[in-house]
Amino acid sequence: MTYCCGMMLERGLVLMSDTRTNSGVDNISIFRKMHHWSMPGERVVAIMTAGNLATTQSVISKLEERNKAPSERHNTVLEAPTMFQVASIVGKLLRETIHERDADNGMTGSGQFTASIIVAGQIKGMEPRIFLIYPEGNFIEAQPDTPFFQIGETKYGRPIILRGYEPDMTFEDAVKLMMVSFDSTIKANLSVGLPLDLLVIEKDKFEPLHERRIEVGDPYFRAISSTWGEALRRAFVSLPDYSFDLPPAAD
Amino acid sequence: MTYCCGMMLERGLVLMSDTRTNSGVDNISIFRKMHHWSMPGERVVAIMTAGNLATTQSVISKLEERNKAPSERHNTVLEAPTMFQVASIVGKLLRETIHERDADNGMTGSGQFTASIIVAGQIKGMEPRIFLIYPEGNFIEAQPDTPFFQIGETKYGRPIILRGYEPDMTFEDAVKLMMVSFDSTIKANLSVGLPLDLLVIEKDKFEPLHERRIEVGDPYFRAISSTWGEALRRAFVSLPDYSFDLPPAAD
Repeated sequence: MTYCCGMMLERGLVLMSDTRTNSGVDNISIFRKMHHWSMPGERVVAIMTAGNLATTQSVISKLEERNKAPSERHNTVLEAPTMFQVASIVGKLLRETIHERDADNGMTGSGQFTASIIVAGQIKGMEPRIFLIYPEGNFIEAQPDTPFFQIGETKYGRPIILRGYEPDMTFEDAVKLMMVSFDSTIKANLSVGLPLDLLVIEKDKFEPLHERRIEVGDPYFRAISSTWGEALRRAFVSLPDYSFDLPPAAD
Repeated sequence: MTYCCGMMLERGLVLMSDTRTNSGVDNISIFRKMHHWSMPGERVVAIMTAGNLATTQSVISKLEERNKAPSERHNTVLEAPTMFQVASIVGKLLRETIHERDADNGMTGSGQFTASIIVAGQIKGMEPRIFLIYPEGNFIEAQPDTPFFQIGETKYGRPIILRGYEPDMTFEDAVKLMMVSFDSTIKANLSVGLPLDLLVIEKDKFEPLHERRIEVGDPYFRAISSTWGEALRRAFVSLPDYSFDLPPAAD
């Protein structure tokens, strides 16, 4: 499993992904699920992947044309004129890759080689954008009503984002919110784990503003994890008390 | 979908279930998923069900022997000598019911007619107990290390229970915790909805201490839902702030 989240703020984009992959509980590895490319002053594009690792690694390799000699490679992510076209290209590669693998194994449609991808970034002259790409290759784009996408193990960490997200929040607060969401997920699902990869993309900057790997034992993540438990308990205590004598519903 | 949660406290048991069933998003109904039987002074047994409604209703009917004339019925739940035997009987009925339906449709194993059940209660001379019964008919029992069971849409509402549960909490606090967990789930999953059924079983009382249906518009549930959002935001603000200049992990 995996957990990745991409968030659209007024001031830019915040992306976070875990790095745990597993094939059974006794075969656990660390793999990067977040990749990004930039041409300073012109564009920055990031991709986060969830699902079958062979499929998603293949998509990334094909994007960079690693099947060609280095001198003949063109990075399509850096050449597409719009983020929409980047999303289209990634979607097409994802669909093709899944279908090839499935066909090799006598299956049709999305079988065990399925995956989904978040594409985020900005190209000069246009707004920052986030897309969620399905295994079928089609995709949706984040909008103010739905300003964040999650892939992988999305449920445990969703309620806090629904409650805590504000479009005008600072990057620091958005990172804090992501950390809480990841902490809740990691506590509940063994297949999501540290280290985490963090990427902050400021609007109209066209290169990463902040990039960091949050390692096991990271003091800030540990502080969030321990103080969040205490803060939640205080929040819980502050709620109105239930009474067995409460009147029934008025309407 | 469904959400049911059963919690074991030092002073007894607290159970809550939603009532929404759906077959597609345009075919939504309200059905009771919590049932209980008691012989005052001797035993109280409660059952909560998730999964295929025809399956779970059939299990409840068979438990009460509604296939027989009223004068010939024996309620097995009220006659089994131990809670373990109640769980065994419910598990056997559940497995048989699922397998019958599957076989009628040419399937083997747990197909679309699958379901799971929480059985909770106390019989005089023994401790209160909670069991989680799988579609295969086997079951596990709650213990101090894992003092609560959830069935149905379990993920959204799990983190707050993991953080908030204390074995010595009052019944009122446990109900409050359940309300928060159900509120988070209802906010995230359309297929879980009010009204909710609540049952509190005090240890060595052998009849329900408190039973209530929490209707749409219930003032307490509404208060929890609105103040929890505010309390969560305060909890979030109280966490240490992230800084782009934080040092990397020390270990």
